[in-house]
Parts: sequence; C-alpha cells; structure tokens
Amino acid sequence: MSLKKTRQENYPEWYQCVVSEADMAENSSSPGCMVIKPWGYGIWERIRDIFDEKIKSTGHENCYFPMFIPLSFFRKEAEHVDGFAKEMAVVTHSRLSMQEGKLVPDSKLEEPLIVRPTSETIIADAFSKWIKSYRDLPVLINQWANVVRWEMRPRLFLRTREFLWQEGHTAHATAAEAEAETKLMLEAYRELCEESLAMPVIMGRKPEYDKFPGAVDTYCIEAMMQDGKSLQAGTSHFLGQNFAKSANISFINRQNQPEFAYTTSWGVSTRLIGGLIMTHADDEGMIVPPKIAPYQIVIVPVIKNPADEEAVMAYIEEIRKNLSAQTPFGEKLRLKIDRRDKSSVDKFWEWTRKGAPIILEIGKRDADAGNVMIKERLKLGTPEGKQIAPRAEFCATAAERVQNIQKAMFERAKTRLFSNIRTDITTPEAFQTYFAEANQWIEEGKQGKVAFVRGKWSGDENSDQLLKNMKITIRCLPFDQSGTEGTCLLTGKPATIDVIYARSY
Amino acid sequence: MSLKKTRQENYPEWYQCVVSEADMAENSSSPGCMVIKPWGYGIWERIRDIFDEKIKSTGHENCYFPMFIPLSFFRKEAEHVDGFAKEMAVVTHSRLSMQEGKLVPDSKLEEPLIVRPTSETIIADAFSKWIKSYRDLPVLINQWANVVRWEMRPRLFLRTREFLWQEGHTAHATAAEAEAETKLMLEAYRELCEESLAMPVIMGRKPEYDKFPGAVDTYCIEAMMQDGKSLQAGTSHFLGQNFAKSANISFINRQNQPEFAYTTSWGVSTRLIGGLIMTHADDEGMIVPPKIAPYQIVIVPVIKNPADEEAVMAYIEEIRKNLSAQTPFGEKLRLKIDRRDKSSVDKFWEWTRKGAPIILEIGKRDADAGNVMIKERLKLGTPEGKQIAPRAEFCATAAERVQNIQKAMFERAKTRLFSNIRTDITTPEAFQTYFAEANQWIEEGKQGKVAFVRGKWSGDENSDQLLKNMKITIRCLPFDQSGTEGTCLLTGKPATIDVIYARSY
Repeated sequence: MSLKKTRQENYPEWYQCVVSEADMAENSSSPGCMVIKPWGYGIWERIRDIFDEKIKSTGHENCYFPMFIPLSFFRKEAEHVDGFAKEMAVVTHSRLSMQEGKLVPDSKLEEPLIVRPTSETIIADAFSKWIKSYRDLPVLINQWANVVRWEMRPRLFLRTREFLWQEGHTAHATAAEAEAETKLMLEAYRELCEESLAMPVIMGRKPEYDKFPGAVDTYCIEAMMQDGKSLQAGTSHFLGQNFAKSANISFINRQNQPEFAYTTSWGVSTRLIGGLIMTHADDEGMIVPPKIAPYQIVIVPVIKNPADEEAVMAYIEEIRKNLSAQTPFGEKLRLKIDRRDKSSVDKFWEWTRKGAPIILEIGKRDADAGNVMIKERLKLGTPEGKQIAPRAEFCATAAERVQNIQKAMFERAKTRLFSNIRTDITTPEAFQTYFAEANQWIEEGKQGKVAFVRGKWSGDENSDQLLKNMKITIRCLPFDQSGTEGTCLLTGKPATIDVIYARSY
Repeated sequence: MSLKKTRQENYPEWYQCVVSEADMAENSSSPGCMVIKPWGYGIWERIRDIFDEKIKSTGHENCYFPMFIPLSFFRKEAEHVDGFAKEMAVVTHSRLSMQEGKLVPDSKLEEPLIVRPTSETIIADAFSKWIKSYRDLPVLINQWANVVRWEMRPRLFLRTREFLWQEGHTAHATAAEAEAETKLMLEAYRELCEESLAMPVIMGRKPEYDKFPGAVDTYCIEAMMQDGKSLQAGTSHFLGQNFAKSANISFINRQNQPEFAYTTSWGVSTRLIGGLIMTHADDEGMIVPPKIAPYQIVIVPVIKNPADEEAVMAYIEEIRKNLSAQTPFGEKLRLKIDRRDKSSVDKFWEWTRKGAPIILEIGKRDADAGNVMIKERLKLGTPEGKQIAPRAEFCATAAERVQNIQKAMFERAKTRLFSNIRTDITTPEAFQTYFAEANQWIEEGKQGKVAFVRGKWSGDENSDQLLKNMKITIRCLPFDQSGTEGTCLLTGKPATIDVIYARSY
C-alpha cells in the first residue's frame, strides 16, 4: 500500500504525498502560505520545547519584538537590505474602506512597514537603548516568531512565504565572546538535529559570497536528504560590529572608552520538518523519531464483535497504566489510545502514514492471551515489523524499545550520509562529469544517487558564477579541515581549503 | 521608595511606571507596537503553558494558520468586515526597490492581504475543506499567534497594534454542542484567571450591540481593576452558522442531509498581563502571583566582605538543593539565585519592582546562624514583610508559603471586587449622579473609587448611545440573573434583566 508516488518514481511528488498523507500541512488559500496541521504542529512543539530548554539552560531569555519594521531601519545596513529587499511583504495602509462598492486599502501610512524577514534591525534598535556599559553585557535573548520571505516557488515546510522559527540575538563586549557564542549555538543546533531529530549534520562555515547579509561570518549545519541533496538546517552568524554601528549599540568598556558591541544571531525554522521528512520518510509515508513524535505509541483497539469491547478496553486500560510509568527520554511516554469510530485497518494505515514509532493492535484474542501485537514503523514490511509479545514483557521494555528506535533512525541516516560523501573526485574534469550526470537524473525527477563531493576549493572570486552554471553550491567549509594541498575542483588551481560541494534545497 | 507616581496621584502614569520599573515591556520604535521583555514574556509563557495544557486536556489540538488573509475573504461576512475594517494592516507590495535614490515599495500584489486581526475567515476556509461528514465533527483546534489591530491610542499590554494571543476555533454538528463548547471554554478562562492569575472575574453574556462581529452570542469574563474600571479579560463566541454559510462549511448529517456546521471561537491575549498589573501591583511596583511568576523565590546573596563569599554561596547552595525538591503547584519550585555584579540593595529593589513573590536575603550572619531572611512581596512594608527563620523550617514550608501567597492574592482581589459592586443604585437619577461624579474623579487622573453598578436594563435599542453619553458600558448580563423586576437604570422603563454597568478599559 505504498504512496501514490515512490521516491524512485518522482522524488518531489513523493515529498508532497508524504506531507499530505501524514496530514502534517497543506497549502492554504492564502497564496504561498501553509496551514500546519496538528501532527506537523505537534512535531514543531516538541522541537520547540527541546530547543527552548537548551536556549534557557545556556543563559538566554525569551522576549518578543514587533513584527513590523519601519522601512527606514533597512536603509541603515546596506548589505542587509540588499539581501532581503526582493522578498519583503510591505504594509502600506491601516484600514479598508468601501469605495464605489469595492473594499479597498485606505489610510496610507506615512512610512511603509516591512513584515520582518528577520529581526536584526529592530532588535539592534532595542539593544541600543538597553546597553550603556560593559556591565549590561552580554545581552542574550531569543524569540519564537513568524517571519515572512516572499518566495516565488513555495513548497510546504521547505519554502513558504510565512514560516515559524526561533531567532537568537546577542550582544557582547568582545569579538572573541561573540564568536564563542556563535559556535556554542551552532553546536546546540547540531545536538538538536542529531540527538532529537536523528538527522546527522556537517558543521562548517559558509563561503564569503554566501554569508548572511550583514554578517562577518556565517556558520551552518548541513544535512543530507535521501536524494543526496543538501538542506541547510540551521545557521549562526557572527555579525561583528556591523549592526552595532548602523544602530549605534555602543557601550563604555572596562577601560572607560566608548566601543561598539559585537553581536550575533542564529536561527532554525519549521524548515527542519522538511528536512525530517526527507531524512526519514519512506514509500509508505512519514517516520517520526520518537523524541519528537507527538505520540510515541498508539494503541488501536481491534473490536470484531461489539460484545468484546468492554473486555478489550479494560485490557488496554491496564496497559495504559503500565506504560504511563515509562520515561524513555526522562519524560513521560507519550501514548494515544485511538478510540475513533473508524475501522482498525484504516487506523493502522493512518498512523503508519503519520509515522508513529510504535502501533499496538489489541483485540479480544490478545486480551485473553495477555499479549500485545507490536508494529514498529521503522521495520514495516520486514518480519520483525510485526511481533506478538506478552504484555508484561512489552510494558517493561517499552522505554528501551522507543530509545532503540531513536538510535536506529540516527544510525541509518548517518550511514547514508557517510556513504554518500565522495572524496575520490579530485580533478575538475571528473567533477564536471559527475555533476552533469547527477543533474540529469535529478531533472528526470528520479531519486538521484547524487552525492556530496568533498574536495578542494581555491576561494576564487568567480566561484559563485561557476557553481551556478553547474547548478551546484558550496555547502560549507567543514570545521574538520585536512590542511593538505590539492587541486580546486572548480578552477583547477592549487588549493588547500576543503569544502562540501552539493546540489541543494 | 515608592514609584514616581502612586495610584492616588495619577493612575494611568502609575501603570506606565509599573510596566517600566518591573521591566516587563517597553514601547518600540515600531509605532504602536511593544517589546515584551524577559520578565513580561516569562509571565506570558507561564500563562500559555497552563492554558495550553487545559486546551489539550479538553480535546483540542494546536495548528498554525497563515497570518495573511486575502482581502476578498473579508467580503464574505458583512458584519465581520464592518467590525474590523477600520483597524487593519494591509500588505500591498512584495518587495522594495531603489528608485531615484529612495527605497520604495515595489511589485504590487494582485489582491491586497490583511494581517489577521483574528482568524475566523481563513480558518473557516480550511474547515470547509476538512469537513464533509458528521464523522469529521467536531473539529477542535487552537493556535497561539500574533494578531494586529490598528489601535490609535496604544498602551502597553492593554492596547498595542500587535499582540499575542490564543484563538480557539471549533466546528460542530449541532447548535447545542457548539453552545456547550462556547461555555466550556469560558469556564476554562474563568479558571485560568481565578486560579492562576488570582484575578476574580464575572461571567456573562454581552448585550446584542456589543457582540463579536459575526457572532450569534458573545460570552465574556470581566475583571475589576484597582481603579474600579472593568477589563474584558477573555471572550468566547457562539458563531452559529454565520461563518459556515459564508465559507461553505457544510457536511452530510446523520440523516444523510447536507447542513451547515455550527462554529465557535474564543481567545485570550497578552492583555491579561495588563489586567494582572492593575489587579495586583501596588505603589512599589508589580506583584506576580506565584503560579505564573517566572521565579517564585529569588535568593539575593549579601556579601559585605569578599572573604565571606565562599561560605555564603555554599550555604545558599544547600538551600537551593533543599528547595528544588519542593513542588508548590505540582511543578518544581522556580528558584533564581541572583549572582550579578550589583549591590544587594539594588537587587532587592529590582526584584521588589518586578514583584517576585519571595526574596531571600542571605549573608554571613545568616549562614553562621543557619537562618534565612524572608521578604514576602505581598507584605512589603508591614511587620510580617521581613522574617528571620531557621533555614530548615523555611525550606520545609516553602511550598506552603508560596501557595498561601497565591491564595492571599486571590482573596484580596476578590474582596475588592465584591465590595465594589453597588446594588443600592436603583433609579436613573441616582445612576446618572453616581457616574457623573465618578467620571469627574477619573478625569482628574486619580485612583477613582468608581464601582461596578449591578442593576436592571430594559434592553432598549438606543442603549448604546445613552451609555456612550455617560462614558460607561454594559460589561455583561451576568449568568446569575436574579429574575426580579425593577427599573431600567438607563431608561426608567420596567425591566427584568440584570447587567453590570461600569467604566471600562
């Protein structure tokens, strides 16, 4: 009963099928925007709660800043406005009125307002009021918010005009402190992705031409999707004194001299859910890692004869009681008993599409025998995908089982990542040939076997254009540089820098 | 050391002082919008978490809907657009470009988009796709989001152009079910306000002319501020089939006939924090009820001699360990040890202004004697406001102490509410005289002694105008109607309906 499209048949259409069949999100009548439905939003809530705890435990506090930014604020940082001007929603009026029988915008604003594409400018303005002395530093804040970037080719979770994210913004007395913060939060993103989303990432620095508009350095984590393309899963920016200068965030330092502060910003968004899907889903639908699954175990009662209902439900209630004491990740196990008025077969497929880690099917025969039928989503279609076990045994080991699924999902994704990084392409010719072929597969809509290529880069200024011609990008300069010399795969020049070349989302 | 303005001197200015001195929020450079700072946002997070649990335990699920609503959606419900048209932020362009050296809006949208003032229309559109049969009902969803209403006289928390809220939206197969939902959630709001915010409320129905635009019935909870004015703290609307008809939410009912669904919506916002301030704050600053205080106990080390630091901090660490086992409201006690590089006196005043329920000051003498100095914010300035107690005794009873503060705050507010509802004004003449005088006090900016007046109302159509002339409103038709006959205080006609007349925010 696989989805309408498999990954082999058409990868992009398969992606849409997963989102839709797992009932995670849908396109809205509001152009380019999505409705995040309960299963998708539940996953986001889990991601948010886990990362919010990290944000707070590293000394940051949550705030909320206005989503409307006066247009003039964008004039202050030239690179910044250049980077975002083409995709900004602009508010120009503050009411509607009826004119000649038509409802039209009225009451034009003196200054247009931009719906935040990101909040550096408005937060820098607040920081300039808050920060006077080195004693006020560091300022470590974060907000969970919606942002808008006017995408022309929207795709659910990956690129929508409005999306949800967190954005951290900090100010420090020294460049070294700000750089340490940038890297600390990048590491927090790696931990979030690998330990909670079971999505392995490569950490590194963006090339100069691909930095965040206004940043001195942009660091990123990159994840490999099942089609071998790369997804930028999170970024952390060292902004130097750029925004501090344009917004006048200055303070009296320990030497009693005025100085501009050093700022950072860092964010992850609902795009992570797109990455999650393309990391874990299969041709039957979504598979959610247990740590962020809204329900880790779903119990489906199988009532063939109405007379059995009472006995089956009483048995399920006992199981519920046993399971509620389990704490797989230091938190109560999240359990759902699906009592809706639907057939158990429909329910099984619904939870399979959604990717609930474990489905228990329980009928009269199981109740009589003291058993449970365990279906692990990750093993669907294999002999171990369906197991009958004594109830006591299952309940006693449920937490461990859930933890093992989390581990297995990460291992599976990690193996895929590492076995799909090519290091054997060492000449520009081989490099050209490889991506020409790979691009061909992708154009045909197949699940490309396109790999990441790890190789040398000379840092040439025209790299951006050369990459565009090949439809590829430099994902990052990985932190683990080898330091060896070799040939730049783009230009053929001698080079020492290692980079990851890849097709990307 | 009272605030720059006391309640007696100037109530509105006192309010601004509390917000600012408690560092809860500030005006932003984005006109009419606020920055919610960590202490204010921390209170909102607590409110959100408590109510989110209630939302979920009553069977609702969280979603997220686009904040941009196509203008045409508002044409569908005539009353609805009339109600909101005057205060809508309108997005008309999707980029900025440089023209003659100026950055200007560019790329005009085919259809303007409204930044949601509330989401009935866009959610009804989604419901119309989700709901086909009675089997799909009820649909019970909620979202936590930002909304925009173009206020011309913004005030922090009470009226800002952008604010945060939750909005629940549900669809049902019968009117009775939808009405029950409306009242269920109103009751949930009462519980939130009274049990967590320690803010007593009156539950009732809005008069016809003051309903939510597009609703059949609007129910509300009304709270009394210290100046005797009323604050609408939450509303719950029975929308009948109005939005279902305009958005075509129809379903096949159990009789196999097509029928329009019955919908509801209900919301509370960051405005609650304004209500919280005007319920509990005093001339020294904010007082936060322990259930929603970001920190319930703050420990301020008092280090007079640097040599004492180690001993004092070790002693504080022991207290921290003891306290961390306490769970005043079924959750770990929230404790802050304030180690910042500031004087203990400054720290004491800062936490007093913020309204942390309990401040412990601990110095060398306390450590040596095994004592703690306990300062309860609610008792500031009274003999019991400062107590020395043996550490073991304090730690053992800390949870109880925190619970008692919660209880005392609610009792204090409840006494004020009940002792300020006048039922002895029974003629239109006395009524006119009373509010003429009360309005005079308020105009002078004093803490008015203005009371709620509970009396009769004939339901006359021109009531709205008569009330406007007197600068008062009917807050609600309380659920506990007496059923007796009397004289309408507005018109002098015979009347049976009881209402609450009051000045309002």
